Amino acid sequence: MSKYWNDKVREIEPYVPGEQPKDRKYIKLNTNENPYPPSDKVLEAMRNAVNGDLKLYPDPTCSELTSEIANYYKLDENEIFIGNGSDEILAFSFMTFFSKNKKILFPDISYTFYKVYAELFDLNYELVKLDDNFDIPLEELKKTNGGVIIPNPNAPTGKYINTESLKSLIEANKDRVVIIDEAYIDFGGQSMVKYMHEYDNLLVIQTLSKSRSLAGLRVGFALGHKDLIEGLNRIKNSINSYTIDRVALAGAKAAIQDSKYFEEITKKIVKTREKVVKELEKLDFRVLKSESNFVFASHNNASGKFIYENLKCQGILVRYFDKERIDNFLRITIGTNEEMDILIEKLRFILSNNQKEL
Amino acid sequence: MSKYWNDKVREIEPYVPGEQPKDRKYIKLNTNENPYPPSDKVLEAMRNAVNGDLKLYPDPTCSELTSEIANYYKLDENEIFIGNGSDEILAFSFMTFFSKNKKILFPDISYTFYKVYAELFDLNYELVKLDDNFDIPLEELKKTNGGVIIPNPNAPTGKYINTESLKSLIEANKDRVVIIDEAYIDFGGQSMVKYMHEYDNLLVIQTLSKSRSLAGLRVGFALGHKDLIEGLNRIKNSINSYTIDRVALAGAKAAIQDSKYFEEITKKIVKTREKVVKELEKLDFRVLKSESNFVFASHNNASGKFIYENLKCQGILVRYFDKERIDNFLRITIGTNEEMDILIEKLRFILSNNQKEL
Repeated sequence: MSKYWNDKVREIEPYVPGEQPKDRKYIKLNTNENPYPPSDKVLEAMRNAVNGDLKLYPDPTCSELTSEIANYYKLDENEIFIGNGSDEILAFSFMTFFSKNKKILFPDISYTFYKVYAELFDLNYELVKLDDNFDIPLEELKKTNGGVIIPNPNAPTGKYINTESLKSLIEANKDRVVIIDEAYIDFGGQSMVKYMHEYDNLLVIQTLSKSRSLAGLRVGFALGHKDLIEGLNRIKNSINSYTIDRVALAGAKAAIQDSKYFEEITKKIVKTREKVVKELEKLDFRVLKSESNFVFASHNNASGKFIYENLKCQGILVRYFDKERIDNFLRITIGTNEEMDILIEKLRFILSNNQKEL
Repeated sequence: MSKYWNDKVREIEPYVPGEQPKDRKYIKLNTNENPYPPSDKVLEAMRNAVNGDLKLYPDPTCSELTSEIANYYKLDENEIFIGNGSDEILAFSFMTFFSKNKKILFPDISYTFYKVYAELFDLNYELVKLDDNFDIPLEELKKTNGGVIIPNPNAPTGKYINTESLKSLIEANKDRVVIIDEAYIDFGGQSMVKYMHEYDNLLVIQTLSKSRSLAGLRVGFALGHKDLIEGLNRIKNSINSYTIDRVALAGAKAAIQDSKYFEEITKKIVKTREKVVKELEKLDFRVLKSESNFVFASHNNASGKFIYENLKCQGILVRYFDKERIDNFLRITIGTNEEMDILIEKLRFILSNNQKEL
């Protein structure tokens, strides 16, 4: 605490990302990274962009990348906004579309950054309680509000809402913006982007961090009506004109281009997920139906904390949230088949030891 | 304008960076980029960082880069904050140290982004008028206020304030933060960083975009008392946990390490600047004393706008501000000797044609 901080800085509770310990080499299943490296074409494009032109500012409008995304999703270039990871776009969206006087709505069990943004920007908000099946109660999101934001699939549950249900949510909220945070959409869900031209209040946010294996690159994008995109640009250009560096622009463009590679690896991850779910169930886990690159699971006998701590000792990191209602769950990123085999083996070991102690 | 924007987004006037036209190849002397490429060691480090690990998030604490900067400036690691360009750090600083109820002070002719930040974050501010010599009237910055920010050297004037004068400014403002924006400090000035341990209210902000030839990389850093740095981290971690990508981290680290290269090229730029100043004066320009990688000059007969437009036709971009008191000036980045020779030649041509028309 410092006398030089303003009141806001004193009172906020910053977001805490998944741990990145450096004490030893872990199998990292805690931050939903992709277990497969980015496409070779991405690496090649990035290497080519490492040259003397780095002395010059990057294109502040990210026009080549924008054009590539426009082409991929059959959109106009002015319907696309590029940001330094989808987190930056989320922050800018809270600054652009939400106001102090109207309550925004988002799920109580969801991406915890939403609450951080709402508090940072002094917004009124209401946490809408997931039902007993950990589903988002969509009817609750249709009551009077100042904006809605949900991840689809939701994190950390992994649960997916179909497009028809989301259409009715967007229609019920015509007077405010509905943000669908599709960070995990490529692992089994269907993007709302195909309905974008039907709604001028829909903002879809995606990232290259998950399905495109580029968490280390920091690029996300938002898709929406050109007026929404213009609003985001007004905020961005009031904070930082150049948020994406030259090499990241080149890599992101190549990643969108090489859709074949990305489709292959997402398929592989989905296949591994289905296998892991079965194995976990055999080990007496309850696993929520996931359409993402992670599963959310609780054990019928052993506590989440116990398993988390024991896995860490065994060299495997998963995400544990010490939070009401989900403190018995673990969020486990889907790694390679080999990594998941090790996970299952370690779990079997930990649980059988636990059994002995009971 | 959209009904979905909040009031703030409607009313802000975003920053407008220097033009980046794509219609033809220009000699770019308009955005204060370095004319020399980054060090080969930087490019090599970046190429090495382009690998499969891009699938993983970067280190959110930027610890290796922080440690390199700490080593270079003989500081502790907790006295350093890394940002996505110094603009992002400036924005975070306005969010961390300034409050709505107390007027912050900055010069009327200065980096125009300060005003944008103040308005975006609803801060009270007062523009302190530069004197007739375009100097910042430091006494005016000692009156009661809620914080002070100045660039040193100032942009777009290029004028530098010595460290003794700044020490007295910082001492007179013990109860609030004084930010010295040292984007251009390496071209002849002395950084305040060496006095950092004497003051807990001093924040120094620097960038790799200018003297380190890395405008295309988007890395800046702030140096200050650990409590100030902690405040910045609280804001950063409430917006975006990972702002610097893996390749940028590697390049920035190598750039700080290779101080020899950076010293060489800044010396070259200073030498070119001194030569250009003389040439401009011979052509009847008034050139303000510059300690930066640009000069601010007005011609005794031809208007700034006329020269700017004619230079653009001739393939040379300089920065022209259509703004009271400085609308007869041009801000000209110092390029290579060859680029500046062409500039002088084109100016001679333009001015002699102008002469004929008078």
